Amino acid sequence: MDNETHSLEAIINNNLTGKDLEEFNRIYYGKKDHNEVKLKESSIAAAKDADFDIAAYAFPAKKEQTRPPRIVKVGIIQHSIAAPTDRPVNEQKKAIFDKIKRIIDVAGQEGVNIICFQELWNMPFAFCTREKQPWCEFAESAEDGPTTRFLRELAIKYAMVIVSSILERDEKHSEILWNTTVVISDTGNVIGKHRKNHIPRVGDFNESNYYMEGNTGHPVFATRYGKIAVNICFGRHHVLNWMMFGHNGAEIVFNPSATIAAEAGSEYMWNIEARNAAITNCYFTAAINRVGYEEFPNEFTSADGKPAHKDLGLFYGSSYLCGPDGVRCPGLSRTRDGLLIGVLDLNMNRQIKDRRCYYMTQRLDMYVNSLSKVLELDYQPQVVQEK
Amino acid sequence: MDNETHSLEAIINNNLTGKDLEEFNRIYYGKKDHNEVKLKESSIAAAKDADFDIAAYAFPAKKEQTRPPRIVKVGIIQHSIAAPTDRPVNEQKKAIFDKIKRIIDVAGQEGVNIICFQELWNMPFAFCTREKQPWCEFAESAEDGPTTRFLRELAIKYAMVIVSSILERDEKHSEILWNTTVVISDTGNVIGKHRKNHIPRVGDFNESNYYMEGNTGHPVFATRYGKIAVNICFGRHHVLNWMMFGHNGAEIVFNPSATIAAEAGSEYMWNIEARNAAITNCYFTAAINRVGYEEFPNEFTSADGKPAHKDLGLFYGSSYLCGPDGVRCPGLSRTRDGLLIGVLDLNMNRQIKDRRCYYMTQRLDMYVNSLSKVLELDYQPQVVQEK
Repeated sequence: MDNETHSLEAIINNNLTGKDLEEFNRIYYGKKDHNEVKLKESSIAAAKDADFDIAAYAFPAKKEQTRPPRIVKVGIIQHSIAAPTDRPVNEQKKAIFDKIKRIIDVAGQEGVNIICFQELWNMPFAFCTREKQPWCEFAESAEDGPTTRFLRELAIKYAMVIVSSILERDEKHSEILWNTTVVISDTGNVIGKHRKNHIPRVGDFNESNYYMEGNTGHPVFATRYGKIAVNICFGRHHVLNWMMFGHNGAEIVFNPSATIAAEAGSEYMWNIEARNAAITNCYFTAAINRVGYEEFPNEFTSADGKPAHKDLGLFYGSSYLCGPDGVRCPGLSRTRDGLLIGVLDLNMNRQIKDRRCYYMTQRLDMYVNSLSKVLELDYQPQVVQEK
Repeated sequence: MDNETHSLEAIINNNLTGKDLEEFNRIYYGKKDHNEVKLKESSIAAAKDADFDIAAYAFPAKKEQTRPPRIVKVGIIQHSIAAPTDRPVNEQKKAIFDKIKRIIDVAGQEGVNIICFQELWNMPFAFCTREKQPWCEFAESAEDGPTTRFLRELAIKYAMVIVSSILERDEKHSEILWNTTVVISDTGNVIGKHRKNHIPRVGDFNESNYYMEGNTGHPVFATRYGKIAVNICFGRHHVLNWMMFGHNGAEIVFNPSATIAAEAGSEYMWNIEARNAAITNCYFTAAINRVGYEEFPNEFTSADGKPAHKDLGLFYGSSYLCGPDGVRCPGLSRTRDGLLIGVLDLNMNRQIKDRRCYYMTQRLDMYVNSLSKVLELDYQPQVVQEK
C-alpha cells in the first residue's frame, strides 16, 4: 500500500498552515480545533508495538443546570485481515482475534466503555467471489459462537460493551445465514442482536447471494453507558434506516462497514452519509470501514467488462466519529489498522434537538400519509404540468 | 468582507499541487478533474464588468443504446442585496432586479435552460428583526406580482425556466404570507408554485413569526427541460422532504437557501446535506445560498445572551451542484455574487438508480408501517434491555 494516500487529513496537515488550516478545519470538520485528548504513554507505546494508529478526541456538551454531564468513551477499530485467505477458516479467524485482542487491550487501558468493529470483522469480505465454500463456514451462532465467546471475556475484563458484526448462522431456523451485529454487555451477556436491513446489489458486493434483508426491525440497545444502535454498512445509504434508530431513542449509531475506494466506489460519500445521519437525527454516529487489500484464491469477475482478478481493491479505512451537531473529528488512515477514541458527552444530543427543532418540525404525519400513497401500485406522482 | 476566506476551493488550490491536489479532489469532490466547461469570452467580460464570478462544469452520463443524451444547462445565481435596508421597499427590490438582470443576460447568452436563485432573492432576509414593517411589504402575488412579471419577460427572451423564491401574499386567502417558490416556464407562464414545508425556529431565523408550514405537498414541475422540484432552505435538514420529491419523479431538486457562517451556523453542513440528498434519491441537487452581510436599521437580539446588534453575520454563498452519484463541482465563493452553470446529462439519474438499486432496496413498506406506529401518542420505542 506504499502508493496509497495516507489520508485526507495528512494531505491537509502537510500542506496547510495558519489561517488556511483553521479555515479549512472550520468549514470541513466544523471546528478550528479538534479537541484532541491526551493518551497514556503506555497506550502509545503498545500501539506502536502492535503497528496500529491511535487517536482520541473530545465531543463536549454545554453545562446544564438539571443534569450532570453524561460522558461515555467510545472506541472504534479498523483493521485488515491477518492471514492469507487460502488458510483454514479457523486459522484466519484466530489470526484476527490475536490482532484485535492487542487493540482491545489498549482500549481497555484507556477506559473505553463501548467499542465497535468494522462489518464482519472476523473474516475477509469474500462475497465478491460468489463462492459459498469455505466462506459460509465463517458463520456462527450470535449467542454462543466462538467470536461471541472470545469477546465476552474481554467485555467482562474491561467492563466494556462490545458491538460485533458477524456472519450469523441461525441454527434454530433451518441454519440460514444473516449479516448480524451482536451487542455484548459489559457483564458479558449478549444484550441482543440486529440483522442488516438493506442488502446491496452493487458492484462486487454480491451479498444478496448469501443472506436476506434483516427481520429484527430497528432495535436500540439500552447499555449501561447509553442507548446504542447499529446501521450496518449499506444501510447508511438509506435515510429511513437511520431515522428509525433515532425514533427508537438511539444516542449513538454505529455504522460498521466494508467499502472500497475503486472507481465508482464510495470514498467521496464516506464523509457525507454518517454525518448527514448525525445532523438530521441529532445523535452521534460512528463510521467504521475495514482496511487493506484482500486477495482471494480464485479469480472472479466484476460484471464491468474487465478481466477476471483476485481482489476488490482497497478498503480505505478512514473511520471517524461525528457529533449530533454534525461536527466530526479527523479520521483514521486509509491504509493502517487503528483505534479511534471519542469522549462523548451524550447531553449534546438533547441540546441540539432543543436548539434546532428538527424533530418538532418534521411533519411526520404528512410523510406517513404521503409515503403510504407511494406504496400503492397505481401511485400517481404529484406532477404539475404547464396549462 | 476583506477578512473573509474566499472559499474552501481557494484554500485548496493555493496550497495543494500534483498528486495531493488530485487525491484531495477525488476524496472530497468525488473526481480528480472537474470537467470545466469553456465559457464565451463575452460572458467572462460581462461578468467582470458586472463584478460577479462565473464558472461552468459538465456532469456527463454514459452513452446508452436506447436513449439519446438528455442534456440540460442549469444555472444557479448567488448574490448580495443591492441597496441599504433602510431604503424604500420598492427601491431595494428594483436595485436587486437591476443586478440580477445583468447576471441572467449572461446566463441567457450561455444558453442556460433552467435558472434558480437563492431563497427570497428579491429582498433582505429580515426575519431576524421580528419586525413586521416594512418587511411584509415585500410580499407579492406569486402569479402576477412585480417579481413574476419581471422574470416572465426574461423567461420568454431566453426560453429559460426560472425558479424564483419569494415572499408570497395569498390575496385569495385572507392576505396571509407564505415562503413560496414560483416556477416560471420558458413560455413565460407560471407552471406552479411550492410553499416551504419546514419552517425554522433556530437562532436568528424567526421565520415562524411570519409564515406557516407549506400546504402544497411535494410538487414536481414538468418543464420543457426536465422534471424539477424545490426544497426550500430549512427543508434540506429534513430527509423526508427530499425523499418525496424523488418519489414524485424529480430529476433536479433546487435548494434555495439563506444560511450563515456564524458560530453554531451551518457552513460545515453545507457540503453534506444537498449531497446526501442527491446520493440517497439518485437525482441532481443544486444548493444555493445568499452572499454578504445585511445590516438592518434597528438593532435586534439573538437570544444568546450577547448584546443587541444589526446584522446576522455572513451569508456564505458557496453554492454548488451535485450529481445523482454524489459527485459535486467546485462551489462559488463565500463572498461574491456568482453564476454557476452545470451541463447535466439527466440520463445519469436512471443509470445510478440501476447501478446502486437504492430505491429497489428501500423497503418502504416496512418504514410506512414503522413510522405510522411512531405517530401514536403511546408509541413504545423498540428498546432492548439486558435480561
